[in-house]
Amino acid sequence: MYMTSKTNHALQSSLANFDNADGELKVADRLITEIAGEAGTPFYLYDRASLHKRYHQLRQALPADLNICYAVKANPNNSIIRELDALYDGLDIASKGEMMRALDAGSTADRMSFAGPGKSADELKFAIENDIGAISVESAREIDHIRQICQDNNKQVNILVRVNPAFELSSSGMKMGGGPKQFGIDSELVPELIKSLVDDRYLRFHGIHIFAGSQNLSAESIADSFDNILRYAQTLRVDTGVPLPIINMGGGFGIPYIAKATPLDLQAVGLHLSRILQSYRTELPETSFKIELGRYIVGECGIYVSRVLYRKVSRGETFLVTDGGLHHHLAASGNLGQKMVHRPMPITVANKLDHPLEHVNLVGPLCTPLDTFGMRMELPTANEGDLIAVFNSGAYGYSASPLGFLSHNHPKEIIL
Amino acid sequence: MYMTSKTNHALQSSLANFDNADGELKVADRLITEIAGEAGTPFYLYDRASLHKRYHQLRQALPADLNICYAVKANPNNSIIRELDALYDGLDIASKGEMMRALDAGSTADRMSFAGPGKSADELKFAIENDIGAISVESAREIDHIRQICQDNNKQVNILVRVNPAFELSSSGMKMGGGPKQFGIDSELVPELIKSLVDDRYLRFHGIHIFAGSQNLSAESIADSFDNILRYAQTLRVDTGVPLPIINMGGGFGIPYIAKATPLDLQAVGLHLSRILQSYRTELPETSFKIELGRYIVGECGIYVSRVLYRKVSRGETFLVTDGGLHHHLAASGNLGQKMVHRPMPITVANKLDHPLEHVNLVGPLCTPLDTFGMRMELPTANEGDLIAVFNSGAYGYSASPLGFLSHNHPKEIIL
Repeated sequence: MYMTSKTNHALQSSLANFDNADGELKVADRLITEIAGEAGTPFYLYDRASLHKRYHQLRQALPADLNICYAVKANPNNSIIRELDALYDGLDIASKGEMMRALDAGSTADRMSFAGPGKSADELKFAIENDIGAISVESAREIDHIRQICQDNNKQVNILVRVNPAFELSSSGMKMGGGPKQFGIDSELVPELIKSLVDDRYLRFHGIHIFAGSQNLSAESIADSFDNILRYAQTLRVDTGVPLPIINMGGGFGIPYIAKATPLDLQAVGLHLSRILQSYRTELPETSFKIELGRYIVGECGIYVSRVLYRKVSRGETFLVTDGGLHHHLAASGNLGQKMVHRPMPITVANKLDHPLEHVNLVGPLCTPLDTFGMRMELPTANEGDLIAVFNSGAYGYSASPLGFLSHNHPKEIIL
Repeated sequence: MYMTSKTNHALQSSLANFDNADGELKVADRLITEIAGEAGTPFYLYDRASLHKRYHQLRQALPADLNICYAVKANPNNSIIRELDALYDGLDIASKGEMMRALDAGSTADRMSFAGPGKSADELKFAIENDIGAISVESAREIDHIRQICQDNNKQVNILVRVNPAFELSSSGMKMGGGPKQFGIDSELVPELIKSLVDDRYLRFHGIHIFAGSQNLSAESIADSFDNILRYAQTLRVDTGVPLPIINMGGGFGIPYIAKATPLDLQAVGLHLSRILQSYRTELPETSFKIELGRYIVGECGIYVSRVLYRKVSRGETFLVTDGGLHHHLAASGNLGQKMVHRPMPITVANKLDHPLEHVNLVGPLCTPLDTFGMRMELPTANEGDLIAVFNSGAYGYSASPLGFLSHNHPKEIIL
């Protein structure tokens, strides 16, 4: 039995992703205390079985003809890329660095698609020289750069036009459509641009890319986004007369981070998507549909584990001071874009799952009040030496944290 | 002439710290375009002359018998530590990693003092074995650890008791006094603790450490903090009958980050401090007074420089997309503890100081709307290739940023 407030849905959901025995979390059939004893704390732990389970959930729920790509930005760890490249239909990369990491992990350039508002000439050159699968272009100026590089190197490259739609794509999650944006080309300029690309000697127009949003937990809202994207694409197809070989609809599938959040209904997303793709299939007969997911693919497979160094009472409040903190896991400290009140991520005492709950302040070793994963939060009663697990740490964890802050050791990354 | 809103006091102050010629920023007598041309962008640039100037300002303004130490956490760059270790009276370190960096930079352990709420046994052992100058202890439990390590290694170590005062130390800046805290030992427990340390075989009681706050721009408020600290110390001296060889009063001197902020009046701080030290001198005759500064010593000496990759207009708004961003400079993106509205740091176009102003959105290359140093901010009109300078980047810049986020190259660090 796990002692937790029944109202912490995110934590319940996280715990359900992993086994436990005798009040201890198990990953890959091993007790967390064993893993920590061998590796030393703190560490990020990625669970291969969870990666595969998520893949099968996605493949089972979503239409068979929908390509699903992995967005490397979520977790560029070599083993993670290697594992996911073997499962999914391609890799989305956001920098030359990510492309190099993906190549190092054994992937091939033709499986990669490159998007980002600030691609440098050096990055574009590297991508083109290595025969990248496609580039999502985000401005007319970028197209000029690409054409020049292709000309200099006698190369052709597949181009997706990234569109900044004039409409808001969905009613929840992180909004990225509508209004002025650094991402993509304003939709009102897209038809002329596409027509100008037909029969380009260097750029093969390959379709469009629209980012559907981020961290969305509503199946209906995600479905609305995709429906809006395809309605737009259909109009564009008619207006320009130019076929759209690929429509990259972005991703935006969320995972539950905060107590009141419940998991995305993936079956419902799948049913919506089947219906939506079906309804546009006749009008977009040449089109392959693609989504790109990062957080949803890799987020829940990862746990950040630190150890309690001190249990300390100050003026009636209990502090657990751990050997890990903000420097290793910025998002868990509430400083990666969360501008409001800090709401703790799903966190527990990994080797005391069945201990009675208490309210504690969970803090790291840094000399700053920012270094907390949660104040007055409910956790199983813990002592020095116990292990704190932060779930949902597979995406935007290690790579999105200021590892050099206060010059502590970097956490290990372990995949089991 | 520099074109800027007269109301941006922080930017005016930053510009006054550096030379310029023909509308270009100069550092160490070199034009910023030259430096960028040689080094490639983005980079952090630290100005040795500014470091020395700040040292002389501090030494001239503050009482001669006040020791001033450098808090390595602000910037642990090897050259910076080397430079500052030669100028100041010692180094404050916050981790074994910082101690190793300081040793690498040529400093000696006796010049170092170690504070932090989560020192691990390994960190304490390293510090004690290397004969660190002093350790600020933050809990009774930590004292047990230290005593055990000293016993095992037949060592003695100087101990400062870090105090969590019952009072709020000042009326502005980041508050760290009063209430339950992970930092220090609650003041009500300190007298007994100190008496218990007298004649300890392994721990030499060396005084107290009270953190006065952080990023405070008011001389009066800083003076109040110091006055409160010394009043407390005097009472403690009387209550315990135990001399206080050192009182580390922390620091907290701020630098102006946001438009409306004006620089700290250092002369006023100095006058207040002289008066305050004088007033407690007779009651604390055995005491050396010490402050530790990080941000104030090194913050204004550093500039983060990136280059405009794209100038892009979307639906009537202009975006400058640069090759640097949040991943290199988390604080400039408003994600290092600033929970409210993002207020830009002092930023300008370093090679177009005299160009007419316009309103632009300054964004980085990352695929996230978080990657901005300022939306609709006033900057000299810039084009592709121009250089964006973020001032006040010498402290909590490079080392406090998620450098691996989206796998771009790390910025260079240059000292001139």
